Amino acid sequence: MASTTPRNAFYAQSGGVTAVINASACGVIEEARKHKNRIRKVYAGRDGIIGALTEDLIDTSRESAATIRALMHTPGGAFGSCRYKLGSLEESRAQYERLIAVFKAHDIGYFFYNGGNDSMDTAWKISQISGQLGYPVTCVGVPKTVDNDLALTDNCPGFGSVAKYVATSMREAGLDVASMARTSTKVFVMEVMGRHAGWITAACGLAAEQEGEAPQVLLFPEILFEEAKFLAKVDASVKKYGYCAIAVSEGLRRADGKFLSETGLTDAFGHAQLGGVAPLLAQLVKDKLGYKYHWAVADYLQRAARHIASNTDLEQSYAVGREAVRYALAGKNAVMAAIKRSSQSPYRWKIEPVPLAKVANREKMMPRGYITRDGFHITAACRAYLAPLIAGEAPQPFRNGLPVHARPKNVAVPKKLPLSFTIK
Amino acid sequence: MASTTPRNAFYAQSGGVTAVINASACGVIEEARKHKNRIRKVYAGRDGIIGALTEDLIDTSRESAATIRALMHTPGGAFGSCRYKLGSLEESRAQYERLIAVFKAHDIGYFFYNGGNDSMDTAWKISQISGQLGYPVTCVGVPKTVDNDLALTDNCPGFGSVAKYVATSMREAGLDVASMARTSTKVFVMEVMGRHAGWITAACGLAAEQEGEAPQVLLFPEILFEEAKFLAKVDASVKKYGYCAIAVSEGLRRADGKFLSETGLTDAFGHAQLGGVAPLLAQLVKDKLGYKYHWAVADYLQRAARHIASNTDLEQSYAVGREAVRYALAGKNAVMAAIKRSSQSPYRWKIEPVPLAKVANREKMMPRGYITRDGFHITAACRAYLAPLIAGEAPQPFRNGLPVHARPKNVAVPKKLPLSFTIK
Repeated sequence: MASTTPRNAFYAQSGGVTAVINASACGVIEEARKHKNRIRKVYAGRDGIIGALTEDLIDTSRESAATIRALMHTPGGAFGSCRYKLGSLEESRAQYERLIAVFKAHDIGYFFYNGGNDSMDTAWKISQISGQLGYPVTCVGVPKTVDNDLALTDNCPGFGSVAKYVATSMREAGLDVASMARTSTKVFVMEVMGRHAGWITAACGLAAEQEGEAPQVLLFPEILFEEAKFLAKVDASVKKYGYCAIAVSEGLRRADGKFLSETGLTDAFGHAQLGGVAPLLAQLVKDKLGYKYHWAVADYLQRAARHIASNTDLEQSYAVGREAVRYALAGKNAVMAAIKRSSQSPYRWKIEPVPLAKVANREKMMPRGYITRDGFHITAACRAYLAPLIAGEAPQPFRNGLPVHARPKNVAVPKKLPLSFTIK
Repeated sequence: MASTTPRNAFYAQSGGVTAVINASACGVIEEARKHKNRIRKVYAGRDGIIGALTEDLIDTSRESAATIRALMHTPGGAFGSCRYKLGSLEESRAQYERLIAVFKAHDIGYFFYNGGNDSMDTAWKISQISGQLGYPVTCVGVPKTVDNDLALTDNCPGFGSVAKYVATSMREAGLDVASMARTSTKVFVMEVMGRHAGWITAACGLAAEQEGEAPQVLLFPEILFEEAKFLAKVDASVKKYGYCAIAVSEGLRRADGKFLSETGLTDAFGHAQLGGVAPLLAQLVKDKLGYKYHWAVADYLQRAARHIASNTDLEQSYAVGREAVRYALAGKNAVMAAIKRSSQSPYRWKIEPVPLAKVANREKMMPRGYITRDGFHITAACRAYLAPLIAGEAPQPFRNGLPVHARPKNVAVPKKLPLSFTIK
């Protein structure tokens, strides 16, 4: 498969960004730079796959080694990301053809797609259609999602840092609430991300190491919300420990399957746009139990918090990018660089290729055995799974008291195609 | 003044806790331990002043030096705090007499009160009535408030760390929003604390160092909200920079002076309980401009975030505790340990005593000159004031990937008074 003349590579970030997605970009680019005889340049899509469709490519070779290295401590998507799902091969054939035309115009032989479920599906489709169209492209998926719901990988880059952030925040806020509960707030609700899988909510549970510590209650999307049972649990915690700290998933559902906080809005992928279950629960507690409350919604703060990133997550995010390049150069096509837990104690991990076809469009839920019988906390098995993912601190440079980030120039590659392409 | 036999000291935390209030406790206790010939023991009020009223005192001499030192990296109130305001000397004479009876029973000659405006007022009253009742107690205020609104001090311990947290969070979340704005969220609203003074909102502005960087819009409680002007500003930012990041004070008011997010609830001090202006603004933007939004409410996360504390703030918090003890031993009564900025460039500060009577019940608002003419950002003068307060990082120990905190035993001092006292 290896051709004697080097080809270009295309790298794109997709979907919600994370505190460490740029570490994967760094892994791709630094590894590619070691193989200039095989990969001439890495082009990045400006705003993700849209950059390919509109032939708006960023020439990463124009960035210094120092700038590329600084991606390791830069949250968000350095080249831009997007929520834009290519349809099926039948419906959206023109888009796929356009992609291949752009790849061909820029001599792109490798495609690295850094995203979640939808992106792995897209990468798989491109690997298929590029062959059909007579311009085969080696497609390798680079996993990323704070939701931790990708199949065939032990965990997902981006998740460990959110997990560390939410567990740290819950532990800190728990101390705050506990110290004032006698005369002030008795119930604190922190809302975290996770539409369908409760991994981030579960991570909040790591904050509690001893009986009675915050959080006392976790509300998972996997467990349908039962008001009476919830209120009884909260009341018992307040009576026993003086307060109750609750972590709730944005995706908490009622018995009828509806989200508690449904707003009626949908995003580009047709998913319901959520937000605001914390204030609903807080008000419920006030109305039914009479306790003073506070609530927080971490929202983007949790997935952008590079300042409290997990070093394990950072290293894995880099490694999946680096290995993706190695796979491509070894001719492995239509695979994703997955994380495998090779040892639990001591924790060891390695990267291995898994077929994109088996990853695409599947969601990995929390096993029921990771949630306690009463549905309100995590089990020892869950702790054992989660603990290594938040291990290690990943210090970053500060200037004037604030984190310093990469400022890539993001120079455009000159266009070669006559036609412009308008995105939907 | 100086007696030949040592007396005990009483230390209490009051009102909303912070990421560094325990550093002040550490300063008080460590300094007192250096003067055992003058201060026998430091008793802490369990849950603040309530601990004195109910004779529920904690014997801090039972804590090891290591535990006291660990207070430096422990957020929340290690001995408990409360929202409990003693009334006027006329209305609440019985409470003041009770306090003095408890102080007398435990040979307490020094009172260190660690709090905000209300607490400085209480400390001042106790200094007065203790003399009237024939049991003079040396009262020294130890300032603390994330609101940064105490008079006669350059800044308030606790504020610098919140400032660093909100500016860091805004910078990180801003990168997230910017990288996806093309197809996803265009407007992000982060709500921060500050009922009447916009200092925390102002601190968010430090995140923006270059034209177009987040946040583009700040909404201060000092500037009445004008919907049309706000929407025009947001729209202009989205059109120019692709997105708009907004920091808003919980205390934002409408033209009629009412809080945008009034819930009708009040706390123990009769202050309106606020929360939720971010979702209101986000919905307004969606309704009037049609932009996709996200919003975050940091709530207690911001004031508990020891993991991203300002080292300047940490050092100052320790220093006001330490100096308070020195003042008391020097016979300075009815004073507060205030921070004085002795040099702006290079930044230098020192602690000096100011009269409690002049601090009590006053609020320091943002000078109008710290807010830009259009009301939506901070001026260079404001930056110059704020910048040194967030300077320096203050690393803390981690274990299993999470911050480790002090676990004081909080052993009770045996009661000496026959009567129990019930708090309101």
